Amino acid sequence: MIANTPKPPYYAVIFTSVRVEVEEDYREMSDKMIELVQQQKGFLGMESAKNEIGITVSYWDSLEAIKNWKMNVNHIEAREKGRSIWYKKFKVRISKVERDYKFEK
Amino acid sequence: MIANTPKPPYYAVIFTSVRVEVEEDYREMSDKMIELVQQQKGFLGMESAKNEIGITVSYWDSLEAIKNWKMNVNHIEAREKGRSIWYKKFKVRISKVERDYKFEK
Repeated sequence: MIANTPKPPYYAVIFTSVRVEVEEDYREMSDKMIELVQQQKGFLGMESAKNEIGITVSYWDSLEAIKNWKMNVNHIEAREKGRSIWYKKFKVRISKVERDYKFEK
Repeated sequence: MIANTPKPPYYAVIFTSVRVEVEEDYREMSDKMIELVQQQKGFLGMESAKNEIGITVSYWDSLEAIKNWKMNVNHIEAREKGRSIWYKKFKVRISKVERDYKFEK
């Protein structure tokens, strides 16, 4: 689903990752995080796709909201497992969306 | 592949799309655009993944570089075909990457 974000400016966290071939608890944790992130103050939406690499973009109304999510204890636990078990590498980019436009048939 | 971008600030164009089920010339045009975009001045890299939705993030050194690519005649032709043939809907977000970090095993 394309996220239905408000008028800019808002923030985008672009998370690009390469997984190792270990599934251990990954799906369970991923589902848990998707549920939890949607309850966070300032969360605006999320988009995700995956083949050789995974790209997840989450949208936020402020840098403070992004920071609060980063400090969430369940999220910290998930990230620690991510580094130790599931991910070979990843990159996180914090960006400010200045302009957007859409097309729909 | 995770794009090997320089130190921020730089720009990210987040293109999220939903395709219709028509393949007509899509792969050929997509390959042509991927080749062409890499020759553009100010292009820093690109990441792409797809299942229900497609997400392509391209990285640029300036808003001017993004604008020049938007004005490229071959790219204009591709976008017109995209609207008329290949895409059901899409959203484009122009954002400024302010901070990034990576993890690698």
